[in-house]
Amino acid sequence: MTVALADLNQMTLPAFSGAIGETFELAPWVAEAAWAKRPFPSVTALHEAMMGAVRAAPRERQVEFLRGHPDLAGKAARAGAMTDASKSEQSSVGLDSLNEADFARFHRLNDAYKAKFGFPFIVCVRRHTRDSILTQFERRLLHDAATEFAAALQEIFYITRLRVVAKVTGEGMPQVNGRLSTHVLDTHVGRPAVGVVIELYELAGDAAHRIATSVTNSDGRTDRPLIGDRPLPIGRYELHFAVGDHFRSRGIAQGDPPFLDIVPLRFSVSEPEGHYHVPLLCTPWSYSTYRGS
Amino acid sequence: MTVALADLNQMTLPAFSGAIGETFELAPWVAEAAWAKRPFPSVTALHEAMMGAVRAAPRERQVEFLRGHPDLAGKAARAGAMTDASKSEQSSVGLDSLNEADFARFHRLNDAYKAKFGFPFIVCVRRHTRDSILTQFERRLLHDAATEFAAALQEIFYITRLRVVAKVTGEGMPQVNGRLSTHVLDTHVGRPAVGVVIELYELAGDAAHRIATSVTNSDGRTDRPLIGDRPLPIGRYELHFAVGDHFRSRGIAQGDPPFLDIVPLRFSVSEPEGHYHVPLLCTPWSYSTYRGS
Amino acid sequence: MTVALADLNQMTLPAFSGAIGETFELAPWVAEAAWAKRPFPSVTALHEAMMGAVRAAPRERQVEFLRGHPDLAGKAARAGAMTDASKSEQSSVGLDSLNEADFARFHRLNDAYKAKFGFPFIVCVRRHTRDSILTQFERRLLHDAATEFAAALQEIFYITRLRVVAKVTGEGMPQVNGRLSTHVLDTHVGRPAVGVVIELYELAGDAAHRIATSVTNSDGRTDRPLIGDRPLPIGRYELHFAVGDHFRSRGIAQGDPPFLDIVPLRFSVSEPEGHYHVPLLCTPWSYSTYRGS
Amino acid sequence: MTVALADLNQMTLPAFSGAIGETFELAPWVAEAAWAKRPFPSVTALHEAMMGAVRAAPRERQVEFLRGHPDLAGKAARAGAMTDASKSEQSSVGLDSLNEADFARFHRLNDAYKAKFGFPFIVCVRRHTRDSILTQFERRLLHDAATEFAAALQEIFYITRLRVVAKVTGEGMPQVNGRLSTHVLDTHVGRPAVGVVIELYELAGDAAHRIATSVTNSDGRTDRPLIGDRPLPIGRYELHFAVGDHFRSRGIAQGDPPFLDIVPLRFSVSEPEGHYHVPLLCTPWSYSTYRGS
Repeated sequence: MTVALADLNQMTLPAFSGAIGETFELAPWVAEAAWAKRPFPSVTALHEAMMGAVRAAPRERQVEFLRGHPDLAGKAARAGAMTDASKSEQSSVGLDSLNEADFARFHRLNDAYKAKFGFPFIVCVRRHTRDSILTQFERRLLHDAATEFAAALQEIFYITRLRVVAKVTGEGMPQVNGRLSTHVLDTHVGRPAVGVVIELYELAGDAAHRIATSVTNSDGRTDRPLIGDRPLPIGRYELHFAVGDHFRSRGIAQGDPPFLDIVPLRFSVSEPEGHYHVPLLCTPWSYSTYRGS
Repeated sequence: MTVALADLNQMTLPAFSGAIGETFELAPWVAEAAWAKRPFPSVTALHEAMMGAVRAAPRERQVEFLRGHPDLAGKAARAGAMTDASKSEQSSVGLDSLNEADFARFHRLNDAYKAKFGFPFIVCVRRHTRDSILTQFERRLLHDAATEFAAALQEIFYITRLRVVAKVTGEGMPQVNGRLSTHVLDTHVGRPAVGVVIELYELAGDAAHRIATSVTNSDGRTDRPLIGDRPLPIGRYELHFAVGDHFRSRGIAQGDPPFLDIVPLRFSVSEPEGHYHVPLLCTPWSYSTYRGS
Repeated sequence: MTVALADLNQMTLPAFSGAIGETFELAPWVAEAAWAKRPFPSVTALHEAMMGAVRAAPRERQVEFLRGHPDLAGKAARAGAMTDASKSEQSSVGLDSLNEADFARFHRLNDAYKAKFGFPFIVCVRRHTRDSILTQFERRLLHDAATEFAAALQEIFYITRLRVVAKVTGEGMPQVNGRLSTHVLDTHVGRPAVGVVIELYELAGDAAHRIATSVTNSDGRTDRPLIGDRPLPIGRYELHFAVGDHFRSRGIAQGDPPFLDIVPLRFSVSEPEGHYHVPLLCTPWSYSTYRGS
Repeated sequence: MTVALADLNQMTLPAFSGAIGETFELAPWVAEAAWAKRPFPSVTALHEAMMGAVRAAPRERQVEFLRGHPDLAGKAARAGAMTDASKSEQSSVGLDSLNEADFARFHRLNDAYKAKFGFPFIVCVRRHTRDSILTQFERRLLHDAATEFAAALQEIFYITRLRVVAKVTGEGMPQVNGRLSTHVLDTHVGRPAVGVVIELYELAGDAAHRIATSVTNSDGRTDRPLIGDRPLPIGRYELHFAVGDHFRSRGIAQGDPPFLDIVPLRFSVSEPEGHYHVPLLCTPWSYSTYRGS
């Protein structure tokens, strides 16, 4: 259930805390501090005020706040002792269903991280694939304490920004969604390629998980972005285009088997809130791609 | 051990048969018939004369000849009851080391094929990947008898041409080798990309087997073709280019993770004796490929 | 001054003729015949009704109608004895300001055409460049009488469709405008190229006339189509992109003089009502283009 | 007439001077100084020894040497009072046939240059187009004396290196020639484009002078480089490819007029001794080019 910014701006403290107090994990004092700054001209300003409260808090309170976050893929996840928001976030990337080996790997990383920094590893999982979470984990373990403290707060910023956007409606929404789109041009006939089957895979180690399927429309595009209403998780992807079927259905000679059948375009996302346009220009004998706009 | 065409042209029948009689599987009469046509101006002419003997033979002898060939990946292969030439050919594509499921699949296909046509399935395995052998097997099972008889003789042509080339040296060698080459242009700086690691994979079902590795030289090419001294087996391939490492080593901004890291080019070979030039033109944000020359 | 279709549908014959009677050159009977078919559900239907009257007329009347059209670039043009609509159309393509040699060439073609077909050469000049008018003229002179009669009526269709669109507003307007657009992607940095100066030239024989200038915006596009609110004249064009300046202003090494400075893309338009998207993907050392969508 | 390095190494001073004394314009002392350094292991070493003599000479002698060079496109050129080597060099770029306006422009630049630096403007014209000579002239007029003195000696280096290469044969020839090559790939059918007419134009101001014509062979290349046995003059060029004719002759639909007819590739040369490979990959609806290798 969402709440309107205009209404929030009018609320008493108890109502305000009831409405968005859980946005910051187990830290009702954040909403309290933000409440004092009403009214907010935009949802972005509301979120900034809440982050401001975290940044202005004494170090002990900040650390206590960070400690309140669950282990990533930890025992809390398995035992069910997480807030609903954390549960939903961790399941989005498959962290609630790791095999024993991966569970053990996360467990070891968590232990090493907590031993070094005194709080659990925090990352905005909705902005990552499983692969990039592991990469981040290993990189951040090398940080010094000050750098990592800042990194953890930055992740809190990303996590709570998404929660605020999911909870509050109104003016000045932060930009939290990315977009992945494509376009298939058949340069053999100089027209958009219609009816081409496209599959999107997320790469994880040596495996590839199909996460979307689409077909090009009369303009050679997909009716909806391949990913569009959420952040683009940082990570590696492959788009597969069934161009062999496309040219076969048009009766074009292309070799047997066709020189090009499934064309894979492999690329990485590093800006979860960005627009990635990854088109394919192709003939039966050539193709090109680029990061477009 | 090879024999010179000039010497063959001078040999008595017993010597001639001893030298190349085994080229045609268990059919010494082929060499005998060819011997009568000496001298041969070229190795191609020698092979044509031998094939001519097969084509001119009475139907019963032709069928007996086809029946003399071993089952593909059959019990003969496992039991060791094949000619050395057949053994070596079948092991080249992994047919001597199938798992039980694949062995059973080949066994079923062989039985169906022999029941329909009266002789075992014959294919020039050096011109195929395991995938394309299965594709051929299933397609050819649908043939009528006359079409398939011609197809089987055509495969005999390919098999024996390779055996003749391996055995005889001299003028007018048949063209039996294909060539797979590549070239990496860094269009970010307008120069060949030097030191780029390239891997070549053969695709088999959903699996990929690495069959070659190379590194680009100062001209952006590989010192030797990726495949060059044998037929290019019909099938599907992927070339992997480590362009992320290339641009990273030059200090070029490319995102983190890089938009392009490993670029896969997936293509199929349909002409085993052809030249496939599959170059990569790339920047950190775009690439293109084509069948070149 | 325009008139609304809804009003036309209500008019008496004199008012109707007064409003759109001149659409068909010196042929008031066309409007009269169309008036009897009121009401029209769309502007397209109105125009079809008028063309229907022409097609249904007796041959002598049709020929008289064709004869009523002025010579292209003829003495009428110079002497001023044309309808206003014809004057404006002919000047759009420069036919009112030919040099003596071109005037003489048109004059000779006109004479030959009239001698062969018995009526002047009619072409919808707004759908052509001067070059393609000459090409059409020479081709159509080779027609037999029936083919050319049909061709002349088709041109009447195009001419009057544009006049109707200019005169009448309402539902179901015919699609008479084409669109020429472009897009510049800087694949050296993987972003749209901003601030690139673009010039559009129309080619005429060996000469080139600049007909539009623009600059790319933050998305690498031009704010408005290079041609957008009229038919795209059939003919040859060159787009010039100042990519040397673009890369120079970003401090990118590109040789001195730069390998690429002004990039010309030369292409032809054959569909005046179509959309031509002609983008440029470039680095300082490479570029590509295609007919896009 | 050429002379062998081995012979030069054996010559007496008078013979040596007679053979190559004129290599350095009106400066026999250069050959004399070089003679003392015999024998030379390579033609490059011979030329270096001669340049070493120039660099080691007292300033007055150096300046006198520079002053001995003719005005570029100056009165000497018109009056015929130049050495044969200078005459041939200046005519190669059209400096002996300037119109009055260009002659006057060169004359003004020469006067300004001599007034500022005390010697005439020296440039290795074989490494330049007329356009780039004018560009160089205007740039170098802005130099301070020391920078320009070094620039003039560098041009002497280029001029005399070409003269030595033209005169002397033997081991270790300096690399003085560049190469311009192309390649046309028809990516509509995945094969080299055969029989495509190619024209090479040198751009001069707004004009274009055709300097070479060729046709692609069975590999899509030209039998000989478009420029290959001399330096590539610094300047701007256009390659024109008749791809419309190519696709028309193959019966491929491409619009009427064809979307692509003559494809111009405009590029500049900045490295006269370099290799410029400028290929064209094209379909009737798309093309790309790049500086290749």
